[in-house]
Amino acid sequence: MNRDIPEFSLQRMPIYLNYLRSLPDDGTCGYISSGAIAQALGFGEVLVRKDLAYTCCAGRPKVGYPRAELIAALENFLCVNDKKCAVLVGAGGLGSALLSYGGFAHYGIELACALDPDREKIGSLIGGKHVYSVDIMGEKCAECSATLAIIAVPAAAAQQTAEELVSAGIKAILNFAPVQINAGEDIKVINIDVAANLAILASML
Amino acid sequence: MNRDIPEFSLQRMPIYLNYLRSLPDDGTCGYISSGAIAQALGFGEVLVRKDLAYTCCAGRPKVGYPRAELIAALENFLCVNDKKCAVLVGAGGLGSALLSYGGFAHYGIELACALDPDREKIGSLIGGKHVYSVDIMGEKCAECSATLAIIAVPAAAAQQTAEELVSAGIKAILNFAPVQINAGEDIKVINIDVAANLAILASML
Repeated sequence: MNRDIPEFSLQRMPIYLNYLRSLPDDGTCGYISSGAIAQALGFGEVLVRKDLAYTCCAGRPKVGYPRAELIAALENFLCVNDKKCAVLVGAGGLGSALLSYGGFAHYGIELACALDPDREKIGSLIGGKHVYSVDIMGEKCAECSATLAIIAVPAAAAQQTAEELVSAGIKAILNFAPVQINAGEDIKVINIDVAANLAILASML
Repeated sequence: MNRDIPEFSLQRMPIYLNYLRSLPDDGTCGYISSGAIAQALGFGEVLVRKDLAYTCCAGRPKVGYPRAELIAALENFLCVNDKKCAVLVGAGGLGSALLSYGGFAHYGIELACALDPDREKIGSLIGGKHVYSVDIMGEKCAECSATLAIIAVPAAAAQQTAEELVSAGIKAILNFAPVQINAGEDIKVINIDVAANLAILASML
């Protein structure tokens, strides 16, 4: 689903959801206008209205969006209430940090376990999550019907890891290795190259 | 600089550079065509040609781009040879992983030190980098003329951290806190919300 929405609009959906969730529950924010959202997030107001139209939550003239309904619509849009399972491959520094991070639950995602080839890590608990051998990737993905995976292995191992994940039934990959992976046409991939992002910022100065 | 290039083209520049650097230096890849680059990276060939035109490295008909020259042009475009200094705020799990990551040097960026409010962390070394008190942020940024910063603090502390960084002379921020920060119009910001990216992937399935 959600294939008919422009990629950029989709990328902003969690930002709207985070912002609306962060507002006080003291009754002062029962309704919120597109203008107020736009100002708080630094987006254009027309853009905000276009984005939120994808959620099917209608704003009311001169009043704005009912906040609770808009949150529910965004949660529905992002399938927050459908529990989804993810596995992580590569329990190094970054992988360990992600295993200890609690933010995935806000989107209905359970990071179930880690997989690593290192015998010294296998059998350990990191952030309360078990680290298993990559040799039993298929079994561990099947156990929780995982469709999502995070790759946090070195660049040289990323392509093979991606192929193994796809064989294990994974449909979408968040790749932190600083290399493009070819996972196949049907597999969704988002690459996050931290150093490249810092380089992009530097080149904009 | 680099303000006249579309944001998406800019985002692909490190991908081209990474790929070209990864090819073997055995003389088999002296020239490379836009088609070969496009196929390897899963981009369209016209897109590759348009992107690379921004680097001022000219491809030769039926031969392609001279690889060494194209690498040099991409490095020049991304200012890899201008040494730049970055500081990191928040030496928790993610911050510690980034302090131990060696990938910044590939773009001419030195991650100089970390800043943290936690007395137990202040004075320690993480990934060979000193952790200082956030109270001396201005001094530490001035010491290395830092223009770049990474925010890896909890969401509630991100906005104040951003404002302090801007006061300390920082011009561009890579923000890992899952919240939008308002750093001012002249400050470049890229937000990386890991959980949100996984949620976006999930919603595309």
